Amino acid sequence: MPELRKDPIMGRWVIISTERARRPSDFRHNNAGRTRSECAFCAGHEAETPPEVLAYRSNGNGADGGGWSVRVVPNKFPALRIEGELGRRGEGMFDMMNGIGAHEVIIETPDHGTDLADLAESQIEEVLWSYHDRVHDLTKDPRFRYILIFKNHGAEAGASLEHTHSQLIALPIVPLNVAEELNGAREYYRLRERCVFCDLISQEREDQVRLVAENDEFITVCPFAPRFPFETWILPKRHGGAFEHNTKHEYRNLARALRDTLGRLNRTLRSPAYNYLIHSSPVREPDERHYHWHIEIMPKLSQVAGFEWGTGFYINPMPPEDAARHLREAGD
Amino acid sequence: MPELRKDPIMGRWVIISTERARRPSDFRHNNAGRTRSECAFCAGHEAETPPEVLAYRSNGNGADGGGWSVRVVPNKFPALRIEGELGRRGEGMFDMMNGIGAHEVIIETPDHGTDLADLAESQIEEVLWSYHDRVHDLTKDPRFRYILIFKNHGAEAGASLEHTHSQLIALPIVPLNVAEELNGAREYYRLRERCVFCDLISQEREDQVRLVAENDEFITVCPFAPRFPFETWILPKRHGGAFEHNTKHEYRNLARALRDTLGRLNRTLRSPAYNYLIHSSPVREPDERHYHWHIEIMPKLSQVAGFEWGTGFYINPMPPEDAARHLREAGD
Repeated sequence: MPELRKDPIMGRWVIISTERARRPSDFRHNNAGRTRSECAFCAGHEAETPPEVLAYRSNGNGADGGGWSVRVVPNKFPALRIEGELGRRGEGMFDMMNGIGAHEVIIETPDHGTDLADLAESQIEEVLWSYHDRVHDLTKDPRFRYILIFKNHGAEAGASLEHTHSQLIALPIVPLNVAEELNGAREYYRLRERCVFCDLISQEREDQVRLVAENDEFITVCPFAPRFPFETWILPKRHGGAFEHNTKHEYRNLARALRDTLGRLNRTLRSPAYNYLIHSSPVREPDERHYHWHIEIMPKLSQVAGFEWGTGFYINPMPPEDAARHLREAGD
Repeated sequence: MPELRKDPIMGRWVIISTERARRPSDFRHNNAGRTRSECAFCAGHEAETPPEVLAYRSNGNGADGGGWSVRVVPNKFPALRIEGELGRRGEGMFDMMNGIGAHEVIIETPDHGTDLADLAESQIEEVLWSYHDRVHDLTKDPRFRYILIFKNHGAEAGASLEHTHSQLIALPIVPLNVAEELNGAREYYRLRERCVFCDLISQEREDQVRLVAENDEFITVCPFAPRFPFETWILPKRHGGAFEHNTKHEYRNLARALRDTLGRLNRTLRSPAYNYLIHSSPVREPDERHYHWHIEIMPKLSQVAGFEWGTGFYINPMPPEDAARHLREAGD
């Protein structure tokens, strides 16, 4: 059973996941670059994954059959386990609990050789609907307080499998970074009675210098204080706290914005490894007034090093105004 | 002039350093692996670095001459600049200030082919004295509130030059991670009237399971809630808030502990890339009662990915009890 452990000084939680690598030599290689014939995410290999929790298919096949367009399965080596009680306890001065949670993989296409950015807009829209459906389903479990959807693309960004996929982790606590962002947004609202993200969108649309692109419902910007070169955010223009409370029309425009933004990053940086994540309100307590859900995309272009680990302070050699200009010029 | 910018939501500061790479193509390569004849840190190449700010040499040569054992120079591509005023200002809803600070490189040996772990104990002791001397000197500058000493070893850990070196950055603010650690330690003290690090040392010496090694004055442990596989801390047994307030005897034992610990990591993990950093009190306001300086060593064995960026929550597949056992068995 994985364990959640709390650092007694910082209050930072970590997941000690014993289901994965154990010996020192296991840390020396990763298994990216597996060929198609060995890939459990490909069409025809459905039996090699744990049983699916969701799939979209129109050919009438049953669960774990072929003919799907998007398929969601539990992670075979989960960082957290779905079964059991939280079991909060102490061990001397230390706090811990069982590593209860969900860890799922969203297989974005049955086709091994395609990246998310190269999929049709309608296929990306289906991926977004699968995020939506899984969040709605997992929200029913009272043990879970936060659900993070994220994507690791490329070995340098932590992807252990090549076949394009996203991940979802449901957690029994609201994580520190999210709590800090929620607190920041709440404090801004308390002082000004306005949403900090709405203000940010207004200012970026007025200034234009960090604006990358916009469509009817979404705006893409390089943020004012980015941690990483070419860090890029996608924000909905309509204020709303939760990703899963969007309309069909909004998911369509989000698919368009996501495809456009990833395409610009690929053309500017020759298809870099990247991470993206969706920051949304804690489940069942959506903070609709202060918070504003959004996507953060971080190309993996530099190594985080001692200074960043020691301070939580980032050195970024690429001003976001320059990054945004390059990305604006990389339109279709 | 580099800029310090504050994220309006999180309150997180970043350094936008315009002295380094600017074009998208600059992010595709790094310049590690330079040969000896091109290395500005080697003996005989002193003219290729900015003028030294400190060196230990016993042959009577003047500044920037040969014959040194440890040499400290300003970073040629500094993340922050030493000259100027802070110039705090706003830009619409955003806060920024000039990127004032010091960024220095500690060249740990004139010899290109040697790593810190392979240096003689007496040479490592000289490196520690150079850290001490630079902190004392920079503390006189009233603009600086925090000094971080850190080391990036290996390209995967962010080192851009192969020749073994540490770095020092003096900052005009106390960074977020340090402030959180200080607050955590202060809160623990308020509740219990004891130092959290002293309690941690007692418990680890009693439990033995996460203990790696100890000498007269220092203890090496794998912490209870490590972010990374084989994360390892070195703590002084004597309570003290500031690295720069140690005795000669303590620096000697720290050199011994550091050499021993890096050697164990090298033997267990086949000389991994790593980062280490010294966490010490803010300068001129040493928190001697609550805080306890220490070294954190983080081998670079896995990629930080979307989940960690999104949550500040780490997934670590190596229980510290197992890591400590491997490191205990890797003694000389």
